[in-house]
Amino acid sequence: MKRIDTALAPGSRIGILGGGQLARMLSLAAARLGLDCHIYAPEADSPAFAVSAARTVAPYDDFAALEAFAREVDVVTYEFENVPGETAAFLDALVPVAPGVHALKTAQDRIAEKTFIAGLGIPVAPFAEVADEATLDQALARIGRPAVLKTRRFGYDGKGQTKIHAETSSAAAFSDISRQPAILEGFVSFEKEISVIAARSWSGEVAVYDVPENHHENHILKTSTIPARISAAVADTARSFGSRIIAALDYVGVIGVEMFVAGETVIVNEIAPRVHNSGHWTMDACAVSQFEQHIRAVCGWPLGAPERYADVVMTNLLGDDINRWQALAAEPRLHLHLYGKRQARPGRKMGHFNRVTPRQP
Amino acid sequence: MKRIDTALAPGSRIGILGGGQLARMLSLAAARLGLDCHIYAPEADSPAFAVSAARTVAPYDDFAALEAFAREVDVVTYEFENVPGETAAFLDALVPVAPGVHALKTAQDRIAEKTFIAGLGIPVAPFAEVADEATLDQALARIGRPAVLKTRRFGYDGKGQTKIHAETSSAAAFSDISRQPAILEGFVSFEKEISVIAARSWSGEVAVYDVPENHHENHILKTSTIPARISAAVADTARSFGSRIIAALDYVGVIGVEMFVAGETVIVNEIAPRVHNSGHWTMDACAVSQFEQHIRAVCGWPLGAPERYADVVMTNLLGDDINRWQALAAEPRLHLHLYGKRQARPGRKMGHFNRVTPRQP
Repeated sequence: MKRIDTALAPGSRIGILGGGQLARMLSLAAARLGLDCHIYAPEADSPAFAVSAARTVAPYDDFAALEAFAREVDVVTYEFENVPGETAAFLDALVPVAPGVHALKTAQDRIAEKTFIAGLGIPVAPFAEVADEATLDQALARIGRPAVLKTRRFGYDGKGQTKIHAETSSAAAFSDISRQPAILEGFVSFEKEISVIAARSWSGEVAVYDVPENHHENHILKTSTIPARISAAVADTARSFGSRIIAALDYVGVIGVEMFVAGETVIVNEIAPRVHNSGHWTMDACAVSQFEQHIRAVCGWPLGAPERYADVVMTNLLGDDINRWQALAAEPRLHLHLYGKRQARPGRKMGHFNRVTPRQP
Repeated sequence: MKRIDTALAPGSRIGILGGGQLARMLSLAAARLGLDCHIYAPEADSPAFAVSAARTVAPYDDFAALEAFAREVDVVTYEFENVPGETAAFLDALVPVAPGVHALKTAQDRIAEKTFIAGLGIPVAPFAEVADEATLDQALARIGRPAVLKTRRFGYDGKGQTKIHAETSSAAAFSDISRQPAILEGFVSFEKEISVIAARSWSGEVAVYDVPENHHENHILKTSTIPARISAAVADTARSFGSRIIAALDYVGVIGVEMFVAGETVIVNEIAPRVHNSGHWTMDACAVSQFEQHIRAVCGWPLGAPERYADVVMTNLLGDDINRWQALAAEPRLHLHLYGKRQARPGRKMGHFNRVTPRQP
């Protein structure tokens, strides 16, 4: 594993795996610091290409292309958690990779992730490994119903999961997730969803932003409200969970940790080893956004102070919501961010906006 | 002259003449709105290329390249005032150009500029046209000494000008500016330099930012402080001069108008028909920066509210100042902007930073 011990000077080149809106906003943040990005993505129409110094269009298992890419950059990072493990390991031998392969692998496998978090003494929903219908029945007997069955890998935005009610047959549930290796999780009855956006540098410095309260529709984030309507004690607990997780993972970069709140109890739901949609509010309410923070972290720069200047409601523009752009552009104190995607498929993240108001004491 | 009457939708393409830091920051602002930029510049290492969707490397008098460029974009703008008049006129026949050719020509010629401003009843320094030593002597006899002799065209950052003291011979002065067509201006004894950054849309809507106070070193802007330490009456006068100038020019886009203040008197010094260095503070203290405002204006979008959230001191990083990047990056509440230039020549604008503090009542 290669490390960065001296800050990469302006003019250095950051390799990013993935070319979606997160890579695009990372690239814009890097440019502001005089750093160039090289985007590696399989899709020729990746939104990040239009704002980046260099691009490679190739699949993630093209090791010749990966080697050439690694030779052109000073550090590699990624915008999504489903980078194949072999891709990350291959690059890791050639160039510093942040977040590291260990953190990526942990976050990619829901069993490894939950085991890791529970091992820190941090509450998670009851869970059990599911390999087939027989182990699903055993797990249901132990955990009870309702419960949620999720594929161990490659789930996001509610994909690869199904809820098991009182009458659901285990055969039907297992079939719903295409009979893949899975995890059964006890259903958590929560009042609020929150997240912690934290950053950690190569030297172990940690910075944690204020906690957003997240509202999902159809399993897709719709709004984040900052500050969350939670007690100071709950906010402190959430932030300390984030800090402990990022340190224990020996993580470098920005992480998103999704949590549930019930009363004064905080339960960690899952880790996203990347900049996170619920951190988009930082773009317009902090000196250093989560995107700049991630760039700073992976490049060995000092982390920015995560101080918040304003209260914010961040709203995602999903699918046809993008058609509101003209009205939104006319609204004062609204910061509009569009991702340059050409096709507005239903549920597709096309942009977001931050409504900013003076910070309340 | 072609106009834009309907806002250009996200995905549209903006052509920018010039590829320096102003084009780079325009391109970053356009990207945030889902708009692509095509940079046209003669220099193959232009800083704006690294953050733009398309580029043309060609001289400004390559009309075949200009025609191909015009066919690829929905609107053309520029980052500097010395775009050749024939280039602007050629493009203007093919595609909307903003700011328009008339405004550009007025700002390019100091005689036309001063005559235009004085014609609005706005105070300027006494001035006279100089064609040769004889007319310089006549002008000196009328205006007196000290005075400043400036080339009519292509001056910036103090280039192409010389001060005429009590003992300076007119031959020496005229030779100092390479005996070019010139303007003699009476020397204005001012207390403060300020500027007005204003924007105007195709439909005539105008937005004016708060007034910065500017400090120059060796004729190059070093800092802008917002708010300026001027009376409310002086600020109102300055802003009204800016509004009248931008409207009278039938201007579309962001303009910078430099002014002198002596007591309660405001004198307009010159117009920059583009985003302006003294407006860089808007990037970190307004919902819509001057760069986004310019993009909005030229693309027919609603202008953003120019409301200011914070007090700011903007400082330019000139030449070797760039070596301070690491210390600056570690300072809280400091917003760092680096331009991606590889060579730090003396006086070269390498970046800037905004120190932001809560807005004082």
